[in-house]
Amino acid sequence: MHWSRWGDPDQAESLPEPIVQLLHKTLGVRSPAPAVAMEAVELPEPSLSASASEALVAAVGADHVFTDAESRIRHTRGKSTLDLLRIRRGDASDAPDTVVQPASHDEVVQVLEACASHRVAVVPFGGGTSVVGGLAPASYGGFIAMDLRRMDRLVELDAESRLATLEPGLLAPRAEELLRERGFTLGHFPQSFEWASIGGFAATRSSGQASAGYGRFDEMVVRMRVATPAGTLRLGRAPRSAAGPDLRQLVLGSEGAFGVITSITVQVQPAPDASVYEGWQFPTFGAGMAAMRRLAQDGPLPTVLRLSDEAETAIGLTDPEHVGSADSQSGCLLIAGYEGPTAAVAGQRDGVAAVLRDAGGEPLGDEPGERWAAGRYAAPYLRDALLDVGAFAETLETATFWSNVPRLYAAVRDALTSSLAGQGAPPLVLCHVSHVYPAGASLYFTVICAQGADPVGQWQRTKSAASEVMTAAGGTISHHHGVGTDHRDWLIGEIGPLGVEVLRAIKDRLDPARILNPGVLIP
Amino acid sequence: MHWSRWGDPDQAESLPEPIVQLLHKTLGVRSPAPAVAMEAVELPEPSLSASASEALVAAVGADHVFTDAESRIRHTRGKSTLDLLRIRRGDASDAPDTVVQPASHDEVVQVLEACASHRVAVVPFGGGTSVVGGLAPASYGGFIAMDLRRMDRLVELDAESRLATLEPGLLAPRAEELLRERGFTLGHFPQSFEWASIGGFAATRSSGQASAGYGRFDEMVVRMRVATPAGTLRLGRAPRSAAGPDLRQLVLGSEGAFGVITSITVQVQPAPDASVYEGWQFPTFGAGMAAMRRLAQDGPLPTVLRLSDEAETAIGLTDPEHVGSADSQSGCLLIAGYEGPTAAVAGQRDGVAAVLRDAGGEPLGDEPGERWAAGRYAAPYLRDALLDVGAFAETLETATFWSNVPRLYAAVRDALTSSLAGQGAPPLVLCHVSHVYPAGASLYFTVICAQGADPVGQWQRTKSAASEVMTAAGGTISHHHGVGTDHRDWLIGEIGPLGVEVLRAIKDRLDPARILNPGVLIP
Repeated sequence: MHWSRWGDPDQAESLPEPIVQLLHKTLGVRSPAPAVAMEAVELPEPSLSASASEALVAAVGADHVFTDAESRIRHTRGKSTLDLLRIRRGDASDAPDTVVQPASHDEVVQVLEACASHRVAVVPFGGGTSVVGGLAPASYGGFIAMDLRRMDRLVELDAESRLATLEPGLLAPRAEELLRERGFTLGHFPQSFEWASIGGFAATRSSGQASAGYGRFDEMVVRMRVATPAGTLRLGRAPRSAAGPDLRQLVLGSEGAFGVITSITVQVQPAPDASVYEGWQFPTFGAGMAAMRRLAQDGPLPTVLRLSDEAETAIGLTDPEHVGSADSQSGCLLIAGYEGPTAAVAGQRDGVAAVLRDAGGEPLGDEPGERWAAGRYAAPYLRDALLDVGAFAETLETATFWSNVPRLYAAVRDALTSSLAGQGAPPLVLCHVSHVYPAGASLYFTVICAQGADPVGQWQRTKSAASEVMTAAGGTISHHHGVGTDHRDWLIGEIGPLGVEVLRAIKDRLDPARILNPGVLIP
Repeated sequence: MHWSRWGDPDQAESLPEPIVQLLHKTLGVRSPAPAVAMEAVELPEPSLSASASEALVAAVGADHVFTDAESRIRHTRGKSTLDLLRIRRGDASDAPDTVVQPASHDEVVQVLEACASHRVAVVPFGGGTSVVGGLAPASYGGFIAMDLRRMDRLVELDAESRLATLEPGLLAPRAEELLRERGFTLGHFPQSFEWASIGGFAATRSSGQASAGYGRFDEMVVRMRVATPAGTLRLGRAPRSAAGPDLRQLVLGSEGAFGVITSITVQVQPAPDASVYEGWQFPTFGAGMAAMRRLAQDGPLPTVLRLSDEAETAIGLTDPEHVGSADSQSGCLLIAGYEGPTAAVAGQRDGVAAVLRDAGGEPLGDEPGERWAAGRYAAPYLRDALLDVGAFAETLETATFWSNVPRLYAAVRDALTSSLAGQGAPPLVLCHVSHVYPAGASLYFTVICAQGADPVGQWQRTKSAASEVMTAAGGTISHHHGVGTDHRDWLIGEIGPLGVEVLRAIKDRLDPARILNPGVLIP
């Protein structure tokens, strides 16, 4: 992972000149904004005491404790656009003092003990792909990044129950590789897939592009082991249970604030024999959503189901390789994907096609689908290229019940547009629906505009405005990105002051010294 | 509901004489054990102070506060066999001091305030059908039954999102009636259906006979309002969310120990046009389970799917009207039910039949299915008839992952058999699987034996033995009955001492005076 950009440095691309001109003409993007070199990054002085450092070395060994500048820079914040803007200008003020790499549950426990007794904060670090400020804790006088990359095993596979026990630091592509060797798939493919970790998926309630077929990550988890400063939680004894409240659901979404997940048992599926992705055109966003609702409520559901609004369809953002190209479409593009045994895929495709046709869709064939599949992880690279030329690009997302989707869509789009226009940076606002349920759907917005003189402040104001209307219009503050520090203040509106008090009571019990991700999640 | 038996007194039946003879011969059932008359029931003196009583009257009005003997007896404990044995012999020592019937969320809040300030315990009471001691709190110096029957409205129906907002005191048949008038069904039909309440379904994580098609009750809930002594929780803003831990999952299964659920929004489905139930025969329990696993993992799933083991098939308990009759079958009886639009039911039935046939099943036609459907709520009436003649009958249930099902099945059956045989009451032990998931299944045991001199102690010893092996063999202490007081001590093994501490921390925050169902759920 590049330290100041998304992903693999070899995959970085620059924007074609016609796009740069288009950004110039339509959005007023003018001045390139290159990132500084790593040497120019300013790091705070490390602040851990010698005795704290010794305790960490005692826990994991000297070879697995890092205080060099590059290690600290590489564990600074996550990959939101604000994170990138800050690190690109050389600001590493949120860097950890030390990076620690435990190799086992017991070493995690020892690191937590060392940190609790020395009052050092701990940020669990998997793939480092947070886009909500989940890796930037409140100032505490010193903190470590607990990098879980050495905990990367497939521990056990129960083929009969279709359950895989995985360690948290396993990155998604490697987990998928280990499972495919045994004939299975996790079926979890969020846009962060190439760099995200299994532990992060659980801690943030991740949802992938194939959620219609395989479900959300939080729905796949059946068992977890969690190291907390107060001891170890072992949760999950059956697929479902009536043995009281489901405490797994407290750990899922806890974002490192309650403990460090050291083992996760998830439902897996047989690896598909066939994968087909196709495009459909709908006259309007509303017509496309009505079709999606029929599939979500009465079936059959494809494995992948997403619908771009008119703006996203026109700009071609479903295919970041061809943004603004001449083959952009009118109406709204729907992508449907089918994965499974070959015969089942054909049957599923026929069933879905009948519904989509009946709901007013026009088939566009495989080409738009295959193009979407080829570019499904490319958008974050495009963002880096946009930042380079002085444009700003960021995403935000929410979800609500079907009857409220039109209101929420209009409210968030209007808030984004009017906030940025009011700051002299009129944006493109694009939207898609990529996760559907019988009761409702997600809305995923992309915002592109010019970087003003203070792009960080510009977005903070806009994001606040969008979050306010999101809450007021009945949406959740996040469908799958999480809370982190960016959404923390809106969690009060989401679960109420008493809900927050419940989270605090749990935190106080599990983490009395409050060393775990302070300032993340809990207002 | 009869005060000392299950259900509608008009539906009570006595056992045919040949069955009584069979019980005598095979199980040694000898002495009839009739229940006392209501006049003979011994009630403790009511212990609420005058000022507490006045506060309750101020909260809900004098017409809705009851202290008469019959009201108190009718709110004593639930409907486990131990509950029935105790009340049948006139023991109402666990009766509430007062029965209070609030009509709204605000009245619930006022009752909680009154009880907190007067240190009176509160047992939320819906249908009164608990079978795990969930309505018998620890001695506290005085407690009320908060009977929610006046909160019985369908508050709102969002047909587009297929969401119904219901009050907690609504009994299931009335909820179903209100929804059917509008074209919908909840699809939740546990054996307690005729008498259980919506609030109770949520508070205990109920699961119904059609869970394969409609899901468990806890999976249907999207929104809840909960009155607690510390304030009101309003939870659930979207079908799914990544806004932190899912606090709804703390309320689901909380069994009245954290608060009183005053509003529940649930996913509903279109009322089915067609319902078909059919029987299949499998040579062994293992072969039938392998077939169920295929359906659960790869589909298609019928709406109802249940499999009796050899003993339950032979005794005919799938059809309580014909227990022990000559038409009992060999092998294992599987019931599959299909509900939905007429065309979909036919397609679903064909798809399931292909899998069952391929897995070694022999179709038995509709007759066994229709017989099961006709008798689906009859078993608790049969239990009363068995108690009358001096037999003992009770059920218990668990769940585990597929790979562990054979071990758990054998361990629990052996524990039940050897414990009761060792006490001179060799039992019939029957079992069925009635809830399946991709990862595993439930096991539901029925035990029938002779009542010894101390049938309560006899069962307590046996239940302890079964619970011990259930935990040791990797099962959950309850798949859908809940924890109550009967399973409380085994919850420690299920979620660990630290998990229990988390529950206590939440309880302390929401209910600092510990007035809510003290002694229920939390060890």
